[in-house]
Amino acid sequence: MKRASVDRTATLAAREYAPYIEATWGLKNHWYPAFFSSEIPADGIKAVTIAGHDIAVRRVHGKLYALRDKCAHRGARFSQEPLCFNDETISCWYHGYTYGLADGVLKTILASPDDPLIGKLRIRTYPIEERGGMIFIFVGDEDYQPRPSLESDLPPRMTDNPSFPYLLDEDVFSRGIHRPVNSNWRLGMENGNDPTHILIHRKSFYVVMSGTKLPLGFIPSAPEAGQFLELPDGQKGVWGVNGEVYKPVMQNQYLGISTPKPVAGPRIDEYRISSWLPCDLLVEGFPAPGWVTIEWYVPIDDVRHEFWQIALRLCRDEHERAAATEFYETVALPIGFTEFSHIDVVARERLQEHYRYPERFGQENFFAGDLAIVAWRKLAARFNRGIQEPPNS
Amino acid sequence: MKRASVDRTATLAAREYAPYIEATWGLKNHWYPAFFSSEIPADGIKAVTIAGHDIAVRRVHGKLYALRDKCAHRGARFSQEPLCFNDETISCWYHGYTYGLADGVLKTILASPDDPLIGKLRIRTYPIEERGGMIFIFVGDEDYQPRPSLESDLPPRMTDNPSFPYLLDEDVFSRGIHRPVNSNWRLGMENGNDPTHILIHRKSFYVVMSGTKLPLGFIPSAPEAGQFLELPDGQKGVWGVNGEVYKPVMQNQYLGISTPKPVAGPRIDEYRISSWLPCDLLVEGFPAPGWVTIEWYVPIDDVRHEFWQIALRLCRDEHERAAATEFYETVALPIGFTEFSHIDVVARERLQEHYRYPERFGQENFFAGDLAIVAWRKLAARFNRGIQEPPNS
Amino acid sequence: MKRASVDRTATLAAREYAPYIEATWGLKNHWYPAFFSSEIPADGIKAVTIAGHDIAVRRVHGKLYALRDKCAHRGARFSQEPLCFNDETISCWYHGYTYGLADGVLKTILASPDDPLIGKLRIRTYPIEERGGMIFIFVGDEDYQPRPSLESDLPPRMTDNPSFPYLLDEDVFSRGIHRPVNSNWRLGMENGNDPTHILIHRKSFYVVMSGTKLPLGFIPSAPEAGQFLELPDGQKGVWGVNGEVYKPVMQNQYLGISTPKPVAGPRIDEYRISSWLPCDLLVEGFPAPGWVTIEWYVPIDDVRHEFWQIALRLCRDEHERAAATEFYETVALPIGFTEFSHIDVVARERLQEHYRYPERFGQENFFAGDLAIVAWRKLAARFNRGIQEPPNS
Repeated sequence: MKRASVDRTATLAAREYAPYIEATWGLKNHWYPAFFSSEIPADGIKAVTIAGHDIAVRRVHGKLYALRDKCAHRGARFSQEPLCFNDETISCWYHGYTYGLADGVLKTILASPDDPLIGKLRIRTYPIEERGGMIFIFVGDEDYQPRPSLESDLPPRMTDNPSFPYLLDEDVFSRGIHRPVNSNWRLGMENGNDPTHILIHRKSFYVVMSGTKLPLGFIPSAPEAGQFLELPDGQKGVWGVNGEVYKPVMQNQYLGISTPKPVAGPRIDEYRISSWLPCDLLVEGFPAPGWVTIEWYVPIDDVRHEFWQIALRLCRDEHERAAATEFYETVALPIGFTEFSHIDVVARERLQEHYRYPERFGQENFFAGDLAIVAWRKLAARFNRGIQEPPNS
Repeated sequence: MKRASVDRTATLAAREYAPYIEATWGLKNHWYPAFFSSEIPADGIKAVTIAGHDIAVRRVHGKLYALRDKCAHRGARFSQEPLCFNDETISCWYHGYTYGLADGVLKTILASPDDPLIGKLRIRTYPIEERGGMIFIFVGDEDYQPRPSLESDLPPRMTDNPSFPYLLDEDVFSRGIHRPVNSNWRLGMENGNDPTHILIHRKSFYVVMSGTKLPLGFIPSAPEAGQFLELPDGQKGVWGVNGEVYKPVMQNQYLGISTPKPVAGPRIDEYRISSWLPCDLLVEGFPAPGWVTIEWYVPIDDVRHEFWQIALRLCRDEHERAAATEFYETVALPIGFTEFSHIDVVARERLQEHYRYPERFGQENFFAGDLAIVAWRKLAARFNRGIQEPPNS
Repeated sequence: MKRASVDRTATLAAREYAPYIEATWGLKNHWYPAFFSSEIPADGIKAVTIAGHDIAVRRVHGKLYALRDKCAHRGARFSQEPLCFNDETISCWYHGYTYGLADGVLKTILASPDDPLIGKLRIRTYPIEERGGMIFIFVGDEDYQPRPSLESDLPPRMTDNPSFPYLLDEDVFSRGIHRPVNSNWRLGMENGNDPTHILIHRKSFYVVMSGTKLPLGFIPSAPEAGQFLELPDGQKGVWGVNGEVYKPVMQNQYLGISTPKPVAGPRIDEYRISSWLPCDLLVEGFPAPGWVTIEWYVPIDDVRHEFWQIALRLCRDEHERAAATEFYETVALPIGFTEFSHIDVVARERLQEHYRYPERFGQENFFAGDLAIVAWRKLAARFNRGIQEPPNS
């Protein structure tokens, strides 16, 4: 009889995605969401930590700059007390070391205008892009070349979905939230694209009140279930729930449970879920038909991730936009992202105690329904652009 | 002049109980109290951690089952959200892995009824017994054989004490409490059986108001003081305060302190204290003549123990039982277990900072009165059934 | 272009003060302030931790005694529950081990008056002196000989300053405060003697309301700026801001900032600051002309220091003393030590996250204004009487 502690099969499987097991601090050399545009006002300064990188962002006359949030003098953080004497620089609050926003080069020292360090010392900068109402930062090695497109790290346009709203299109309604979750980022990713985790949602207000009939779970039903999705713009993904490659399980004879089929109300197998590098989830049909939700599980450090959710909808006129706003504010945000998704947040945080030991990734006793998770791990191991080292190492 | 830091004598003595010094996580392959019977209602599920083992307990139709509180799939704890579809199994709330209560074998997976893992994977179970209003679990190696009797890990029946109430007898009144204490379990044990720690109780309400005249301490007065007690049912113990083998010290000339003798009121040397493997203390005569108190200092982890106290009294009819209840609720619980024993709790927690370094067990400068502690350590080193390894090691 | 992470120059410079980099727990074999005299009442007992040494201090009939705050029996702290049976000893609350205050020798055990340990076991004592309204303890190796004078570890009398009040003189007004700060002690020292940190004070109530015109900073203007001060009584120091060896910087052309000169109101370059072993700062002219402030940044452990400030003033009669009291209570304490100095406290605590890694001391990108810090480091590396080892090592 097999005991969890002597799981040789799992160990063998884990070899196929070994780099993923090391990715406690995330994947590097990818684009990550950092802020909503509205979070950095004109001439505002804010700080963010992504995959262990502490980054200060300043907006000047609409343009954004991102620099390492640490003075090269004695390690003070600019964001501890933002100080800017002009539009081209950021200064340290402690001794006035002043760096160029665009290049990170030391431009002057307040009390030592002729100092030999000037023009020679610099701190690193980060590529930053503002698109679709969001601010993205390219995090990883400073000298990584060539720099991939932002599009390559976003979920792709699903051309076979006629109502698909693509984040970067002009006429797309986009609203969302983000908040920190006390679990490693991988527990977020592996919750979102997990075709059988729906068990935890069965009693949610969203599911019960919408009349959604959840099956017991989904298991693969076609070879495509575990295959890599490689898109022309460079996006790399795998399927989560997708009615064409996963089939719903409606009964369990041993437990005497069966779910009536065909179901009334929305059918969850009409949703379509896919996961994409570096940490994106695309849910077509959530929180309602015609909508798309994108989630990101952005690594903050080894034990926390920033959980992003945006709801997208194609709006061809102001009338549709007003209706989308109404739906977002009364349903998508309070019931979808808050009530429903909080159950996922709890699940991730519950698993963190177990997964704080990195080797636990790879020691699971997976079953058929876990194919999506295994496929995701292999994808991440195969197509990541680097494994983020811990800071200060 | 001898400095504490160069204590060669203590180091030599410590060799005699070396295994005890390693027992940070407790002794394994022993029975430990886990709950009072009343704490697990019909069909209830509760979790407990003993010596680093996380254990889920479920009661079904009066019968109790104990299993490892961790799903073999991905490490979720059953107790985080108890889920049972029938009377024979426990299911994981995350993906519905369903295990037999009696054998821990995977019986089904909710969304994969034909999965090859079924019948092959299992989690460990623990022997569990409900006796005398309490629930005990045998904690240690799963394959430990033969399994010792529960009686061998309880304080024995003291046949030379005519009013002795034995925990497992039918006509015994038994009531008690338990609560976590922030110290290693050994600091509990070594406080309870310490014949000179009574100094800390001299100003307690219980001592002052009862007119108890405490001596300054007790020191050994007969060879039996340090000898092992080996009982026919397998119990192993040593004496703490026992008037036949320890004598009270009534004065200290250097300090000009003397205690009048014979004393008025209850005499503490009429108490009789003994300590027993794995972590039990037996106090005959506390909190009043005719009563017995049993304490356990059950290891939770390396820095906490669960402190148990039960008060026992022989009751031959309902009248005696009503009187015992009255005494327990008005004296034993509020004054004995709460006011008086809280002083011991504080002492143990104060010493934890020092003893967090394991080698500190064995570096003491012991005096004559510490014989009971040294004897206990040697007993534990000699008769334990194994030293508990840390979890996840 | 030079990146902070490949700072070879800094690494080379760091070799010149390598012992300082190791001094996480402070310098040993020096005198440190422990209490104000008023903090230990007649027959009072208090505990203090200096450089990892836990010390109990008892006053008996005006005389002070300092002993290790840990019983040699089982590690209990005397200060957890002070217990003294007479004027010559301190006893442990747990089992009554009783030590001589003067020599630390075990005089008796409460319950074992004839114990062989008596007269043989001892705990260490610490030299203690009460001078100028303060209590100082000599912390370090017990056998360090010859013991240096207290004066050698205090800031010296500045004989070229006619209004200079020396702490140990009879007619000196002295009042002050102390409180713990959550940073390593070196961040306190390197804040106090830093000639360019005044940037952080520019908006303080003290600076603004007093009409003080701060320059942008100070940079060295004479060779004495970085030289060691070696005084006849053994004091070792270096200059911080001193108008004769540092010059104010009044403008920065790159930033378009200039400070009008000559300035109105108090001129900060009329202050004179010097730093002294082991962790003392002397500020002549603060918080007002005719006053002197002494600060100490006493190591508590590796991540905290006790921040001391005393204000001194020469008072030749009761009238002057009353005026000094009035000024201390209405200006020096609430505005100088509280409002103004709190800005320094915040700066030190902000830098702690960076400097928790010891090697960060020595990896800075220093500029001209940092000469005082570098000189201090070299002084400490050259003249310390030992680097304090961590406790329990």
